[in-house]
Amino acid sequence: MASGGAGSRVSCGRDLSCVPEVADTLAAVAKLGFDFLCMPLFHPRFRREYELVPAKSRPGAQTRSDLLLCGRDWNTLIVGKLSPWIETDSELTTERRNSEEFWIHVPLLDPEDTREDLIENESSKQMDDGGNDEKTWAWWHSFRTLCDYNKRICLAIEIGADLPSDTLIDKWLGEPIKAAILPTSIFLTNKKGFPVLSKAHQRVIFRLFKLEAQFIFTGANRHSEKDLRSYLQYLEYLNQNRPQPNAYELFAKGYEDYLQSPLQPLMDNLESQTYEVFEKDPIKYSQYQQAVYRCLLDRVPEDQMETNVQVLMVLGAGRGPLVNASLRAAKQAKRKLRVYAVEKNPNAVVTLENWKFEEWGDQVTVVSCDMREWTAPEKADIIVSELLGSFGDNELSPECLDGAQHFLKDDGISIPCSYTSFLAPLSSSKLYNEVRGCRERDKDPECHFETPYVVRLHNFHQLADPKPCFTFVHPTSDMNNNRYQCLRFLIGCNSVLHGFAGYFEATLYKDVTLSIKPETHSPGMFSWFPILFPLKQPIPLSSGDNVSVRFWRCNNGKKVWYEWAVTEPICSAIHNPSGRSYTIGL
Amino acid sequence: MASGGAGSRVSCGRDLSCVPEVADTLAAVAKLGFDFLCMPLFHPRFRREYELVPAKSRPGAQTRSDLLLCGRDWNTLIVGKLSPWIETDSELTTERRNSEEFWIHVPLLDPEDTREDLIENESSKQMDDGGNDEKTWAWWHSFRTLCDYNKRICLAIEIGADLPSDTLIDKWLGEPIKAAILPTSIFLTNKKGFPVLSKAHQRVIFRLFKLEAQFIFTGANRHSEKDLRSYLQYLEYLNQNRPQPNAYELFAKGYEDYLQSPLQPLMDNLESQTYEVFEKDPIKYSQYQQAVYRCLLDRVPEDQMETNVQVLMVLGAGRGPLVNASLRAAKQAKRKLRVYAVEKNPNAVVTLENWKFEEWGDQVTVVSCDMREWTAPEKADIIVSELLGSFGDNELSPECLDGAQHFLKDDGISIPCSYTSFLAPLSSSKLYNEVRGCRERDKDPECHFETPYVVRLHNFHQLADPKPCFTFVHPTSDMNNNRYQCLRFLIGCNSVLHGFAGYFEATLYKDVTLSIKPETHSPGMFSWFPILFPLKQPIPLSSGDNVSVRFWRCNNGKKVWYEWAVTEPICSAIHNPSGRSYTIGL
Repeated sequence: MASGGAGSRVSCGRDLSCVPEVADTLAAVAKLGFDFLCMPLFHPRFRREYELVPAKSRPGAQTRSDLLLCGRDWNTLIVGKLSPWIETDSELTTERRNSEEFWIHVPLLDPEDTREDLIENESSKQMDDGGNDEKTWAWWHSFRTLCDYNKRICLAIEIGADLPSDTLIDKWLGEPIKAAILPTSIFLTNKKGFPVLSKAHQRVIFRLFKLEAQFIFTGANRHSEKDLRSYLQYLEYLNQNRPQPNAYELFAKGYEDYLQSPLQPLMDNLESQTYEVFEKDPIKYSQYQQAVYRCLLDRVPEDQMETNVQVLMVLGAGRGPLVNASLRAAKQAKRKLRVYAVEKNPNAVVTLENWKFEEWGDQVTVVSCDMREWTAPEKADIIVSELLGSFGDNELSPECLDGAQHFLKDDGISIPCSYTSFLAPLSSSKLYNEVRGCRERDKDPECHFETPYVVRLHNFHQLADPKPCFTFVHPTSDMNNNRYQCLRFLIGCNSVLHGFAGYFEATLYKDVTLSIKPETHSPGMFSWFPILFPLKQPIPLSSGDNVSVRFWRCNNGKKVWYEWAVTEPICSAIHNPSGRSYTIGL
Repeated sequence: MASGGAGSRVSCGRDLSCVPEVADTLAAVAKLGFDFLCMPLFHPRFRREYELVPAKSRPGAQTRSDLLLCGRDWNTLIVGKLSPWIETDSELTTERRNSEEFWIHVPLLDPEDTREDLIENESSKQMDDGGNDEKTWAWWHSFRTLCDYNKRICLAIEIGADLPSDTLIDKWLGEPIKAAILPTSIFLTNKKGFPVLSKAHQRVIFRLFKLEAQFIFTGANRHSEKDLRSYLQYLEYLNQNRPQPNAYELFAKGYEDYLQSPLQPLMDNLESQTYEVFEKDPIKYSQYQQAVYRCLLDRVPEDQMETNVQVLMVLGAGRGPLVNASLRAAKQAKRKLRVYAVEKNPNAVVTLENWKFEEWGDQVTVVSCDMREWTAPEKADIIVSELLGSFGDNELSPECLDGAQHFLKDDGISIPCSYTSFLAPLSSSKLYNEVRGCRERDKDPECHFETPYVVRLHNFHQLADPKPCFTFVHPTSDMNNNRYQCLRFLIGCNSVLHGFAGYFEATLYKDVTLSIKPETHSPGMFSWFPILFPLKQPIPLSSGDNVSVRFWRCNNGKKVWYEWAVTEPICSAIHNPSGRSYTIGL
């Protein structure tokens, strides 16, 4: 099996339907620049017998001798495929299919439906969604469901001359695509006689690059003046000219679809390296600085700039970045500040004390205390905190700030002043399988489905735009932080629901915001990946279905947790009832 | 919680919506003959507060003091219910509902839909199925799904004056009914002024008796000349006059919905008690006797009755019942027999030797050998075996008889000469939960869903008539016993699929048969309970859906196993691929 490399070169293979002699063919194909050869596993000499009677009973091997190549070459240079004449619906293959490792070749469109279009050669024809062009997806979905989402079953998607709608392409790109099959027939010819692809095809190829798909060229050379090499060279050209990743994508490299347990900074003291990573965020602290700056200008008129000393308390000061941002803001606004840096983590307090000794001086008082237990010597004009998790309130910012509110002046300001979580339904067999793989031996066997995960969502299909879930405002008169929300999403295509993506938007001050919701994402900010709320069971969806999901935020005085359940189109179980699988310690 | 007794008396309770004083009310209710009292858990004094603001914050207990009754009385005489004014959809109750033990009161028909019918008072009006009258079932199904089929959530079904269609009643009777609520308003008045029920209602009550439901009387006495006792007495009268259980039901008593692993008589030697139970079957051996009798008459013309000695081999003779049945048949037919009793279990051979010594004499040769390895001294006219399991071939009768066929004469007869397994889709949250409870710590967490169970199906709803699955014929020229079958069932109501019931029919000889398929069940035969093939995930079904299921019988030379998968209306995973969770040793 050819390995998917994360390097800058694209891995490309050559597909052949009949390979009488492996080593020679492999050498010829390698000489053209291909990385691997895709060929039938089954020996061609048995083809005829296999069709008549099970070849089983005949003497002689049905697959090739492993002496033809060395083990390493078999593993890295050959992709076995099912011979086209093997009936995968027959009993005999069924017995084998869970135990064999192979790629499933699925055309993007049902060949029956598109044959006519192919003749017309409208290469970028858009088709209506929700109809026949979803048939091939339904085949694939049935197949992988029968195989119980076996991780070893990946997709080799065939890109035809016709491309389906963008929605359908989005849907396929949420599937575990291992390879794309490119028939030579889909290539156009440019002025110089070289094979090229249409713009629409290029866009698909660029998206496949992001998924680190491999490419397999199939069919005869159709550009007879040129070598077969010219197809490969064109693909490599596209690869070199693909859109550059942005700062966020670069930061997230390697974390794609990797599940992490949400931080519990209240229960656990963060490690110094964790602070270090988040302090490097190029956007977050400049937004905080801007928020404090705007707030100081609003609170202190120009004629009081020398006399009015604002009391600013940084609640959860960590290693000091918000203190520095606040001091910069004061300097920028030409306003006077008295700062308290409150931090419960004694290791971080050491760093704060060093900052004070070396830089801040008397302007900053370092307080080694949990903000909820601190007896403040005076009341604050401004409290500044960064207690938000990927789902906004999931690191218990509401409870912490409620506990600190008593030392905020009546007209005092909290930065952030509000935050809202968002949810969107998603389909992703990759993520479903990742969650499934988190089962722990001594826990309830479904425990890992009742826990949210922080994850850079990558190989997934978002089924509808995110909708707001829970909102918290500071300061507040209502300190009941339990919440209940029912969200309803209209689904635009046949699909399968695997869970919900969670995001947040926060208002620091007036129009100074932080967001990880894709539509409003603060550009370049990398401190938060989205959160994923999984479902125990995939829920099949039809185009036009509504998905209703109910979320609860619960609190028993010691812990906070979420519960969630789908109630439309069918009910799921309530996930995490009574916080049995996941809680956040207060 | 009143306990469901298996005794002959029906357990009846009195439902009251307001109980200011528990002990006195309980005494009064007991005096009338009731076994328990059904009353709100929530104290009536909090009713008003609860509606306005969460009563939580007010001082004072919201439920009653446990000192009002002794612990035993609380446990056995009081059924707590949710106060009618509690909104079970509110956030606050949601927190509690998984941790509280209570019965869910569900009307058989939506009161909104039936109010007009009630006014017309057509007490046995039949309604169309699949429409609004399934609404209440959908409520219940959503609720128990949200609660993840928690075993402690049972049904208290309210029987109204109107009864739904038989299909819908069948459906409800597949649910975990713990109690039936009987409003006094559904009772008619007989000539003597006593409360009685319509015939249709009586039929439902009889079926509820079989499920050992308890009964709760609600509403005021409507037969003012009579005591409330008269309702109770009428129900007890029905109980005493219920249809008598048949022999099979009596035998199966106590085994209802109890899951057993199928026997593996080939791998394991049966115990003497096991033989003893099955030898008592009043029907099976008389059918075998009849088959041998008919076969002897056909094979030996009257003029050869003295000269023609038929060679009959009992394959798997156990403790001898088939030998005796064959000898009785020969006597009855006045034909001569030479019998070989072949048995692999050395413990059973001891019993056979004793039979020979005490009864059979030289007419019977006892052979201590596996039939597949035996070198027979002559060929048989007739081979007789009882190797069938609940699913026909599941105790490997095909493989055993194929292994013995070489010593059957070319025109020889096998009794049985053929058998066919049958499958029917079923819904049963009881059985689903029983299977779920079979999880074993050190096995794959879904292993127990990939195993069939032998079980006296009781609290279930069969969703369609059984259809034939695999057929085997003996003797045969085709010894490939692998099979594949796809069955399709039209479903007549909204429901949920939990698995498949398996049965078999066998032809012993000509029209002499054995059957455990309900429609053709050999009357009084108790040797086989049905088999259950579970599904890992309940599959929601709509009226008019087709259920397609595929079954495979596989063999790797050492073991035989089944695999199964639903492919319509949606795909399940393939269950037991490669026999990973369940095999039958050859």
